[in-house]
Amino acid sequence: MASLFLIPTSLNPETPSAALLPYEQDKIKHLQNFIVETAKTGRMHLKQLSLNTPLQQLNVMELNKHKHDYSALIKPLQDGHDVGLISDCGCPAVADPGSRIVSIAHQMGFNVVPLVGPSSILLALMASGMNGQNFSFIGYLPAEPNLRKTKLQKLEQGILKEKVTYIFIEAPFRNQKLAEAIIGQLNPELKLCLAINLMTENQQILSYSIQEWRRKKLDIDKKEVIFLIGQ
Amino acid sequence: MASLFLIPTSLNPETPSAALLPYEQDKIKHLQNFIVETAKTGRMHLKQLSLNTPLQQLNVMELNKHKHDYSALIKPLQDGHDVGLISDCGCPAVADPGSRIVSIAHQMGFNVVPLVGPSSILLALMASGMNGQNFSFIGYLPAEPNLRKTKLQKLEQGILKEKVTYIFIEAPFRNQKLAEAIIGQLNPELKLCLAINLMTENQQILSYSIQEWRRKKLDIDKKEVIFLIGQ
Repeated sequence: MASLFLIPTSLNPETPSAALLPYEQDKIKHLQNFIVETAKTGRMHLKQLSLNTPLQQLNVMELNKHKHDYSALIKPLQDGHDVGLISDCGCPAVADPGSRIVSIAHQMGFNVVPLVGPSSILLALMASGMNGQNFSFIGYLPAEPNLRKTKLQKLEQGILKEKVTYIFIEAPFRNQKLAEAIIGQLNPELKLCLAINLMTENQQILSYSIQEWRRKKLDIDKKEVIFLIGQ
Repeated sequence: MASLFLIPTSLNPETPSAALLPYEQDKIKHLQNFIVETAKTGRMHLKQLSLNTPLQQLNVMELNKHKHDYSALIKPLQDGHDVGLISDCGCPAVADPGSRIVSIAHQMGFNVVPLVGPSSILLALMASGMNGQNFSFIGYLPAEPNLRKTKLQKLEQGILKEKVTYIFIEAPFRNQKLAEAIIGQLNPELKLCLAINLMTENQQILSYSIQEWRRKKLDIDKKEVIFLIGQ
């Protein structure tokens, strides 16, 4: 039975490097068929994997080009070949479109083999100092100020009642506005953690109470930021 | 400024192995001070880290022994030494007591450096084929049947309304009962994924609709299982 390997990649697209544990890297050297999120970034990652087959001879299929019909992507598995799934950044099938392929692989009875690697969500959670026993990744908050305000009120209830840690993201050019809205609105005793430029040389993890944030200068414009709010 | 390194470990306590990316392993070779969850398991992991200092000369402090007063654990950081935080299994400060130490380190102004490694929660999510854009880890469900029933009803609403993927765990001897309750109760079109014995030779990731599960035999008694329900 062929297997679908879920292959994580570096979080830093400017300095790609293998992001696999050494003994897991050995599990995928034989692969010749890959589903990637975008071809250019995918090939950049494939270069780092020390595969047995030269890059030019690999079958590299782009996920985004087959959005409405995944049959071509699944074909190599049906023909008995192991396939690797790689997203542009981090762990495939978390906060990216890859989970649909994984779901199809299960439906068709193939093995699914996740490999260990970097997830900005998980690194941010570990480093936040917030509750890791109960956490939610919720994607993006509403951009519209009133809807965002209502959403933040709801999250505040979840933190106070159930000690949830909420993790979310924003388009980098809207980071600063979102952080200011949170600091302006949230209960001063709750905490906001910003995990900035994870796994780059400029990595910074700032975790303060809202009260403390109100006394600090903030400049996260256009940076890669994971937001966490909690206790 | 001293740093607190968050060091992940193997998910399989019977075959401990380094669970770090090679270039991240280099970042912690110099460490001589460690906070571990339990001393015995901690030392077993420390052996695998290729540290510069022999095991007997390390300062290994047990988290569980200092539950009510962490000042001894923080002292090396205050004295200017980098410290490693290691839990018994997987990523520290996620679903374990380590997050309190991370929180204190932030309060006192030390750097917090999370390293990439295995998280059963994240591996299970990647491999489930379920929505990775909106997911919640919620620890344990209530053991009492009526409370569990009400909780599962609430989760069902979250899945149907907001496409949340819920991730939870159970004491291994209660796995079978929990899975049977889910399969008996949940909307037949929703999915249940069981990620069993992750990162061991007996790893199995089973992802089916509730309807399909009703036709299958299930034997997960005393196995390590991550439960996921979603769409």
